[in-house]
Amino acid sequence: MHGLHISSSTQPGYLRNLLPSSAPDDPESLDQVLEDVQANILPGVTHWQSPNYFAYYPSNSSIAGFMGEMLSAGLNIVGFSWITSPAATELEMIVLDWLAKLLKLPEEFLSTEQGGGVIQGTASEAILVVLLAARDKFLHRIGKNALNKLVVYASDQTHSSLQKACQMGGIHPENYRMLIAGASTNYALSPDVLKEAISHDISKGLIPFLLCATVGTTSSASIDPLLSLGKIAEENGIWFHIDAAYAGSACICPEFRPYIDGVELADSFNMNAHKWFLTNFDCSALWVKDRNALIQSLSTNPEYLKNKASQTNKVIDYKDWQIPLGRRFRSLKLWMVLRLYGSKNLQDYIRNHVNLAKHFEGLVDQNPRFEVVAPRLFSLICFRLVPAEGNLELSNKLNHELLDALNSTGKTFISHTVLSGMYILRFAVGAPLTEKRHVDEAWEIIQAQSSLLLERFST
Amino acid sequence: MHGLHISSSTQPGYLRNLLPSSAPDDPESLDQVLEDVQANILPGVTHWQSPNYFAYYPSNSSIAGFMGEMLSAGLNIVGFSWITSPAATELEMIVLDWLAKLLKLPEEFLSTEQGGGVIQGTASEAILVVLLAARDKFLHRIGKNALNKLVVYASDQTHSSLQKACQMGGIHPENYRMLIAGASTNYALSPDVLKEAISHDISKGLIPFLLCATVGTTSSASIDPLLSLGKIAEENGIWFHIDAAYAGSACICPEFRPYIDGVELADSFNMNAHKWFLTNFDCSALWVKDRNALIQSLSTNPEYLKNKASQTNKVIDYKDWQIPLGRRFRSLKLWMVLRLYGSKNLQDYIRNHVNLAKHFEGLVDQNPRFEVVAPRLFSLICFRLVPAEGNLELSNKLNHELLDALNSTGKTFISHTVLSGMYILRFAVGAPLTEKRHVDEAWEIIQAQSSLLLERFST
Repeated sequence: MHGLHISSSTQPGYLRNLLPSSAPDDPESLDQVLEDVQANILPGVTHWQSPNYFAYYPSNSSIAGFMGEMLSAGLNIVGFSWITSPAATELEMIVLDWLAKLLKLPEEFLSTEQGGGVIQGTASEAILVVLLAARDKFLHRIGKNALNKLVVYASDQTHSSLQKACQMGGIHPENYRMLIAGASTNYALSPDVLKEAISHDISKGLIPFLLCATVGTTSSASIDPLLSLGKIAEENGIWFHIDAAYAGSACICPEFRPYIDGVELADSFNMNAHKWFLTNFDCSALWVKDRNALIQSLSTNPEYLKNKASQTNKVIDYKDWQIPLGRRFRSLKLWMVLRLYGSKNLQDYIRNHVNLAKHFEGLVDQNPRFEVVAPRLFSLICFRLVPAEGNLELSNKLNHELLDALNSTGKTFISHTVLSGMYILRFAVGAPLTEKRHVDEAWEIIQAQSSLLLERFST
Repeated sequence: MHGLHISSSTQPGYLRNLLPSSAPDDPESLDQVLEDVQANILPGVTHWQSPNYFAYYPSNSSIAGFMGEMLSAGLNIVGFSWITSPAATELEMIVLDWLAKLLKLPEEFLSTEQGGGVIQGTASEAILVVLLAARDKFLHRIGKNALNKLVVYASDQTHSSLQKACQMGGIHPENYRMLIAGASTNYALSPDVLKEAISHDISKGLIPFLLCATVGTTSSASIDPLLSLGKIAEENGIWFHIDAAYAGSACICPEFRPYIDGVELADSFNMNAHKWFLTNFDCSALWVKDRNALIQSLSTNPEYLKNKASQTNKVIDYKDWQIPLGRRFRSLKLWMVLRLYGSKNLQDYIRNHVNLAKHFEGLVDQNPRFEVVAPRLFSLICFRLVPAEGNLELSNKLNHELLDALNSTGKTFISHTVLSGMYILRFAVGAPLTEKRHVDEAWEIIQAQSSLLLERFST
């Protein structure tokens, strides 16, 4: 990766001019293809594996995860039902039990109880299947014509995939409550705000059915108060989902585990092993307490898939826990990560990134031209350049331009968000190769680009 | 693979006793893991890559596809937006244009027009996004409260993923018309039956919005009459989708291309490169004529994903063409397959399997104890053992037992379906390593097991 620009400086449509307009009739050589990869593909790649990558949230790769992918691609089974490869289903059950135990999830989430874990492609798919399961559980009770009465609750800091899931599942857009979570609660959902919204909806004859709380929001890694929210969900008989896509990984460390206290009240819990857990994309772990809710919403049983093991209910068929029918043997890579690292090394891996983030936070704090905007809880720092004078508009413009300037260097790659109207830079530590020197280098670049920018602004 | 049983004889729960109940604290060695793979995982694998695998439809693997997977896993980018790796989006656009040209799809399906192709994980996801796009296009016009009036049409031979998509998208179960397609039409949907159903629904105030035709149904590889059906869809302003998940691959051969004549009337077309096109799972190619229909149904635009390229509409962001947000760099493997084989070899690859299937069909035909049940069009033979005496019930029992007996040998693996009440064995040729000798061996096993079974039945 050394010497490559992290982010691509290519222009839209660049590749079409470099490749032929149709497939070859005759075979080409591997050398030709690999030359093309080097010359034409890599310059258009944004290097998520670069140690200088700090954008969005990380997408971890590791040798262990890579070997798991190789094994999976080599066997190339399609594990929709137990019978199509018993090992694929059973290893997934076992490995998600392992991970549930590392996270100290309540026993109800284990496959040995009435629940269990399943690997989804992404947190978007996890939230969609949860929403569908919850929706159908309610509609089963109150009749399918009540769809337009169902209401979903979450904060406005919740990932956009919940809104998309609502749209796909036919929830009326005006029944998706994006409750405001602002600076006063550190961007966490207030239980009082939730309680009021639910009361108001019930009084109008609407039916609350799903609450989604987040541990580690996308914008600022904020944490919703699970215990208080979970109790409200329980009192109102609402499905309670916890999205810990990014921060869930950290909760294998005892010092971070308190952040998911309250998970015992949840009906479902999700974390992405492909973000910050060294498991190559895609590998999103979803646990539910009641697997039958998923199955009742998502199962199909066509003749051509019938088999003795499924008919006698002795097995799990993961096709009924997900959107697609086909599925890859993804548990192999998670299994290899857990075994080849061991839980102690995985904990240290997380701690190292959190410490690097603390180090960066200290650097920002020490420089009066910058401010840290939201509390740093895991490995994400939200910060901005604060002009000596100027209103919010100017400040936002400045930080927007700073982002563009930083990423244009090709030496670092970060992303942004908006919090309380402020344009904010997000610095997410989490690439496997990132060391202290890379954080320091990034900070040097940020300072240098800021100076150039402030000079330009002041003239 | 040699010496291994194709299908696993393991019992439900076998693996839990062989693996520890929690992840290790300290790292284990790669040797330990690989020993476990050999000793405990492989015995529970159903070998889809075995040359003796004839079940369901194939799941092709190739060195080209495998290397594409390796490259993708190594880069491990998450290509939700163009900006997150321009090459990933652009190569996908280009390679799906290549494949569209090989299939001689109408120009409107190309990314250079208003349409374009996208790689979905599976045909289930393809049909779901198409259903949502069509649904939302209609609801946008007629109001979202009309959801319970929308009607979907398909034959009862259509893949179960359409029914699942209806369920997920909130289409009322009674508004999914599974029109009977029986032996008299070779299990294809009759245009007259469709026309009548549509008229009837319109007269009741319902709103037809989606027609799904299949080229190569799951049970018998039958082909719906696209031209006639497409005209009916056109006359009624219905979204017309073609599911060619399995048989689409064959249509790169001029002699099979006529089977998708009528695709010019379709709004969307789907084929699975991961089935019979040497591209490792997952790689389901979906083309649409109007990409805006997908985008209007599936786009989200949260602040943290905004970027200049997306805001100026100069690029495609594939996140808005699919269910999940994140996506792997899957075009690499399809690109490598197309280049390292070349279209001529890919055509020969298909032809070879079709010829092997013809050969098997001939063997079945020559044996009076068996009958071929539906016409063989591609590489699937539907056949059954016909007892000298006995009713349908006995015959079904016999063929069911024959299937179990065959798969219990561990030397071949096939699957079944039911056609017109008959229990049928499906013999699908399509594994990359299958040669004539494997087909002959399978036929020997089928005859031997049938003799044993008939002996047992007659005593």
